[in-house]
Amino acid sequence: MGRTYDTISFLSDYGLADEFVGVVHSVIRSIAPHAAVIDISHEIPPHDVRAGSLTLVRAVQYLAPGVVLAVVDPGVGTARRAVAIEVGDDGEEVFVGPDNGLMAAAVSMVGGAGRAVELTNEAYHLPSPGPTFAGRDIFAPAAAQLCCGRDLSELGTDIDPVTLTPGLVPLPRHEGDNLEIEVLWVDRFGNVQLNVGPDDVVDFGDRITVRWGSQVRTAARVGTFEEIAAGQLGLVVDSYGLLSLSLNRASAADELGLAAGDGVTLHAPSG
Amino acid sequence: MGRTYDTISFLSDYGLADEFVGVVHSVIRSIAPHAAVIDISHEIPPHDVRAGSLTLVRAVQYLAPGVVLAVVDPGVGTARRAVAIEVGDDGEEVFVGPDNGLMAAAVSMVGGAGRAVELTNEAYHLPSPGPTFAGRDIFAPAAAQLCCGRDLSELGTDIDPVTLTPGLVPLPRHEGDNLEIEVLWVDRFGNVQLNVGPDDVVDFGDRITVRWGSQVRTAARVGTFEEIAAGQLGLVVDSYGLLSLSLNRASAADELGLAAGDGVTLHAPSG
Amino acid sequence: MGRTYDTISFLSDYGLADEFVGVVHSVIRSIAPHAAVIDISHEIPPHDVRAGSLTLVRAVQYLAPGVVLAVVDPGVGTARRAVAIEVGDDGEEVFVGPDNGLMAAAVSMVGGAGRAVELTNEAYHLPSPGPTFAGRDIFAPAAAQLCCGRDLSELGTDIDPVTLTPGLVPLPRHEGDNLEIEVLWVDRFGNVQLNVGPDDVVDFGDRITVRWGSQVRTAARVGTFEEIAAGQLGLVVDSYGLLSLSLNRASAADELGLAAGDGVTLHAPSG
Repeated sequence: MGRTYDTISFLSDYGLADEFVGVVHSVIRSIAPHAAVIDISHEIPPHDVRAGSLTLVRAVQYLAPGVVLAVVDPGVGTARRAVAIEVGDDGEEVFVGPDNGLMAAAVSMVGGAGRAVELTNEAYHLPSPGPTFAGRDIFAPAAAQLCCGRDLSELGTDIDPVTLTPGLVPLPRHEGDNLEIEVLWVDRFGNVQLNVGPDDVVDFGDRITVRWGSQVRTAARVGTFEEIAAGQLGLVVDSYGLLSLSLNRASAADELGLAAGDGVTLHAPSG
Repeated sequence: MGRTYDTISFLSDYGLADEFVGVVHSVIRSIAPHAAVIDISHEIPPHDVRAGSLTLVRAVQYLAPGVVLAVVDPGVGTARRAVAIEVGDDGEEVFVGPDNGLMAAAVSMVGGAGRAVELTNEAYHLPSPGPTFAGRDIFAPAAAQLCCGRDLSELGTDIDPVTLTPGLVPLPRHEGDNLEIEVLWVDRFGNVQLNVGPDDVVDFGDRITVRWGSQVRTAARVGTFEEIAAGQLGLVVDSYGLLSLSLNRASAADELGLAAGDGVTLHAPSG
Repeated sequence: MGRTYDTISFLSDYGLADEFVGVVHSVIRSIAPHAAVIDISHEIPPHDVRAGSLTLVRAVQYLAPGVVLAVVDPGVGTARRAVAIEVGDDGEEVFVGPDNGLMAAAVSMVGGAGRAVELTNEAYHLPSPGPTFAGRDIFAPAAAQLCCGRDLSELGTDIDPVTLTPGLVPLPRHEGDNLEIEVLWVDRFGNVQLNVGPDDVVDFGDRITVRWGSQVRTAARVGTFEEIAAGQLGLVVDSYGLLSLSLNRASAADELGLAAGDGVTLHAPSG
C-alpha cells in the first residue's frame, strides 16, 4: 500500500444539469468514504481542453494536497490513454484524467510528472452497460483507490512521463515592437485576462494602444479597479499576476466584444 | 433506534441561484452533523417530475448506501403525501420525498418498496412562518433524523407500499414493424437518449431510418462515438445501456431539433 | 485560543463557471481540514449587495452554528474594510466578509453584532501575485483560522460595531391608504416575494388591486398555491412569512413582467 490521500479536487466539463458530477461523487463515496471531494468547476465548456487546462492552472497552487481528478475528454472511447501522474518526488499530489494535454500545464506548475501509469487494471474499473463513461467507470474509482492507499503501480502499467501529451500554453509573440497576444479567459465579472504579465510591457508606458479585429482602444495601466475612471479602459495586474483588460464595476468583455481565444495586439509606443 | 446512515444523496428542482439547496444542507448539518450530503442534481426543470424520475433512475445504482432525498414537488401544499420508503428487506437505502411518482422507478430498480411511512410526525418537522417549504421543513429533517438512527416508524404513520403512486416509464410501442419511441433525455453533450436498448433493434440492420415531426434521417449503428463519420448520424449504445442518437463531437440534439419527451419512429427495414 | 467551529456557510457572487468557489473551498481545506463548507448560493448577480443581503437574511436562521462567509464585494481593492463580526454575547456565529452592508441585516436578525475586527493581520492572509483576490487571500483564511480556534482578536484590530455599514432594508411606505412596496425577490418558480407580511394588509380584504408600471391586476388572498384558480393571480404568505404574488404551477414573474427591485402599489379597498 502507498500513501493515502483524503482530498480529491475535481474539475470537469460535465455541467451541473445532468447527474454526472453527482454520480462521480457517489462512486468515490462508495469506495473511499473518508475522502472529501472539492469541486473546482464543472462548467468548463463541453470538450474545451484548453479552457479546462487554464482553469486548472489558475487553481492548482491553491489546492489541498491530494488527488486532482480532471475530466475534459473529447476523445473518450478512442485510443487516448487514461492516466494517473504523481507529481514531484514525494507524490504529494496525483493527477488522474485523460492524457490529452488537459493536466500538463498544471502538473508542470507544481513540480512536473514523476511516476505515471495508464489506468489499465480493470479490477479497479466499474463494469459499464455500454461504452465506458470514463469519469464514472475509470477515473473516479482510480482517484478513490488512491485515497484508500492503493499504490499507483496497482492501477495499471507504468508509462514513461516523457510520452505524456504536452499542454498548449499560448505564448505572446513579438512582431516588430508590438506584442501579439491572446485572451486566456473572461471571468464572471467580465475581466479579460491576457497571456502577458507586467514584465512584458515595462517599455509600453502608462497608456497602451490595444487593437483587435477592426477595433482599437487605449488602455490605462493602473494599480486597482478603483483607479479606472468612468468610460476608461484599464489594464491591471490581476490576482493571478497577469494583465487584464478591465472596467470599473462593469464587464470589459461585454463592452469590447472579446472572448477567450481572441487575438489582441499591444502596440509599442511610437518614437 | 434503527440503523444509522451517513450519506444523503440529494436531487431536486431547486436550482442553484436561490438558497434552497444550501438551506436544506444547513438543516441536515444542524440535525445530523456526521452525514455527508451528495448533490445528484438540482437543475431538474421546475416541477418536471418525469425528468427528475429519469435522472434518479440513471444515478441510483451508483449511489452510496444511505438516504435518497428527492424533491420535485409541484403538488406541495396539496393532499399529496410526504413519504419515506425503505428499499428491500434490509433497508440499506431509504427514499424520502413526495409521493408523486418521482421516486417509484428508482425504488423499483434497487429492490422495490419495503416499509413505508407518511411523514406525519410533526415533532420532526421544522416550524414554518408560512405555508410549508417541504424540502426544508419536512423532507430534510426526516432524512437527517434517519441518519441519527431514528426508525422509519418514528417519523409517521405506516402506509401500505402498494398505495404509493407508481412511476411513468415510457415504453416503446410496436406499430406494425416500426417502433414508436420517445426521447428520454438530452445530455450536456447533445446526445439524444432513447427509450430502447440494442435488443429492441436487432432486426433493424446497421442503417436505421429515424423519423420525427416532418423529418427523416438515416442513423448508422456504431460501437463508439469515434466511428461516427463527419456529417453522419450515429446510433450508439450509451453508458446506461440505451440507444442514443449522437454525432461525433457535436450536439445531435441541436442538429436534429430533438428534446426530452419528443416522439420518434424507428422504421423496420423494408423487405 | 478561542472556541472552534466546524461549519462554514458560504455565499458569494462568484458563480460556478470560474474556479473561484472551488479555490475558496481548497484554501479552507488546506488550513482547516475538519471544517465542512456549505454553499448557500454563489449565483448572486455580480456585485449585487442587495440581492446577496436578502438571500442571507432568508437563509440565516437555518444555518448550522459556525462561521458565515459572505462575499459580494464590488469595492474590493478600495478602502472598504474586510471584517469579522461575532454575533450576540456567546459568539455562536461569526460573520466574515466585506463591510459594505451585505451582512448587516442577517447579523441583526440573529442577535446583532458583538465584537468585531478588521482583518488587518497579514500573517493570516495569503500572499497574492497581484491585487488581492479577497475571497481567496483574506476572507477564506480568516474563516478557516476561526475554525482552528484562532480568536477574533488575533485576526486584526478591534473596531466599534456601531461603525459597521448598515444594511438597506426596503420598507413598505403608506401613501394615503395605499401601500407602496417593492419586489424583494423572484424565486426559481417565479414567485414574486414582496416586502410586506400578512399583517400589513389585514384591512385590504380578499381581493387586492395591484399596480405596477402601467399595469393593474387583482390578486386573490389565498392560503395555498393550489387554491389559486387557473388564470387567477394569487397573493399568498410564502414560506418566509412574507406575501408573494404567485400563480398555480406557473411563473408569476414571467406573466407579470416583475423583477427584484421593481416598485408595486397595493391599493386599499375603496369605501
